[in-house]
Amino acid sequence: MSLIVVGSIAFDSVETPAGRADDVLGGSATYFSYAASFFGPVRLVGVVGSDFPTAFREMLEKRNVDTAGLEVAPGKTFRWRGSYQGAMNAAQTLAVELNVFGSFDPKLPEKFRDSELVFLANGSPQVQGRVLDQVRRPRLVVADTMNFYIDSAREPLIQLMSRIDGMVLNDEEARMLTGITNLVAAGRRVLAWGPKFVVIKKGEHGAMLVTPTGVATLPAYPTDRVIDPTGAGDSFAGGMMGYLATQKTFDEAHLRRALAYGTVAASFNVEDFSLNRFQQISRADIDRRLDEYVKMLVV
Amino acid sequence: MSLIVVGSIAFDSVETPAGRADDVLGGSATYFSYAASFFGPVRLVGVVGSDFPTAFREMLEKRNVDTAGLEVAPGKTFRWRGSYQGAMNAAQTLAVELNVFGSFDPKLPEKFRDSELVFLANGSPQVQGRVLDQVRRPRLVVADTMNFYIDSAREPLIQLMSRIDGMVLNDEEARMLTGITNLVAAGRRVLAWGPKFVVIKKGEHGAMLVTPTGVATLPAYPTDRVIDPTGAGDSFAGGMMGYLATQKTFDEAHLRRALAYGTVAASFNVEDFSLNRFQQISRADIDRRLDEYVKMLVV
Repeated sequence: MSLIVVGSIAFDSVETPAGRADDVLGGSATYFSYAASFFGPVRLVGVVGSDFPTAFREMLEKRNVDTAGLEVAPGKTFRWRGSYQGAMNAAQTLAVELNVFGSFDPKLPEKFRDSELVFLANGSPQVQGRVLDQVRRPRLVVADTMNFYIDSAREPLIQLMSRIDGMVLNDEEARMLTGITNLVAAGRRVLAWGPKFVVIKKGEHGAMLVTPTGVATLPAYPTDRVIDPTGAGDSFAGGMMGYLATQKTFDEAHLRRALAYGTVAASFNVEDFSLNRFQQISRADIDRRLDEYVKMLVV
Repeated sequence: MSLIVVGSIAFDSVETPAGRADDVLGGSATYFSYAASFFGPVRLVGVVGSDFPTAFREMLEKRNVDTAGLEVAPGKTFRWRGSYQGAMNAAQTLAVELNVFGSFDPKLPEKFRDSELVFLANGSPQVQGRVLDQVRRPRLVVADTMNFYIDSAREPLIQLMSRIDGMVLNDEEARMLTGITNLVAAGRRVLAWGPKFVVIKKGEHGAMLVTPTGVATLPAYPTDRVIDPTGAGDSFAGGMMGYLATQKTFDEAHLRRALAYGTVAASFNVEDFSLNRFQQISRADIDRRLDEYVKMLVV
């Protein structure tokens, strides 16, 4: 089924205990679409500035990412600078220049309006809602958000949740949004606002799936090769949605497998800066690691 | 196979976001032996003061815990007072009175010296070593420790590790002992000191098994009913060792299942203060939850 993502495209400068990278390709829609592209075609909607190299667009096109929705606006591309320390669980943002992303009002190309799976990467809930208005008859809508919008646009976010199937949050966001410390209870509180499922990402501690009928926690893939966690959450979502786009149903068993694919996608992403590790692997590598992961969970 | 535990027996006073309990039965050997007793008989070695009620000894005896090694020394039983906040990941120790435990030098009853599985609960590595000297021909020796001994008795601890099969640590202890932040790498460093496997407990985030041939991470059992995490780590170890005592081999598949049983035992323990929840359940409840847990991990 067709899969669309709307989100940010950025130049990131990142420093981690393992090294640094400057002005490398990043952004939620970038990581998402690359990860999802291992599973099938992806439709990308985003905005970049006139400084965005055509080579990057071509690289994405070669990955089966349709960039018809990639708007080039006068000005500079979104830039983010951050660092990670210790166990690299949380990024410290050192600088943000929204640039053209600051006034981004996504217009879906006509040919994208029949998209069946929709991923609304982290953005203002109002903008996420306007994207949704442009999709005719989506079969599965999943949204992400971040602390900034939970704080500044709580009501619009809660309204958005009544229009979506799945909400993706990290542990800190789930607690902030609900005021509940226990993640199972926090997940159930989010369900009460409308989504059919909630995925709570816990970084190196894995992810939790909460539905009206059950809860599943899955560990991260264990690795001692963590170079840069930037984009891990979006790669997770890309693996998850990319897999679901190949399926006919979205029941709990399929959602658990989707979380497993998300986990594996994220585990590759953190092994190098930017998209570097993704560019070295194929779907077969993902399936091999998924197989290892599945076996590890036989207890 | 016969299973012996040597550790502390205490009166705990605990405050958590869910409530408080004063002067309730606790201690590493108490939680361990109760959890292990769901699987078979347990031999307990510890010390209490003259204030220790006979009712507690009788309660353990009824659980198939052989208290022949429970020494009663003149003076008071070990007391600990602590509190948990927020997500209850870490205890804050408010007061410790070692009392009779301070000069505890365990003497194994002659009939315990043929024990096949040995769990050395957290204690000084020198004392743990002297316990091991008294066991004739153990088949599986697993030790726990804590930050205090990592700091004050690092060399004796490293020497002890050359004599044991498995080491149990929490994430903070693993990092402190090795100076390595990544837990997979930290676990491998511990293996280099001698143990055949390392279990790293991560509280609400589950546990990790590191062996020379592989790494497995398993999540905690997801629950929104966390009343008091005191004793969770020792209940985990009790479930793990209790299960292993019913097995003939200790290969990776058995160790993973042992971690799963430990996870389930700990998940019950945190549902109330002291041994309260354990006293309400049977082996069938443990197996039912294990079954749920196993199904949750089918991805």
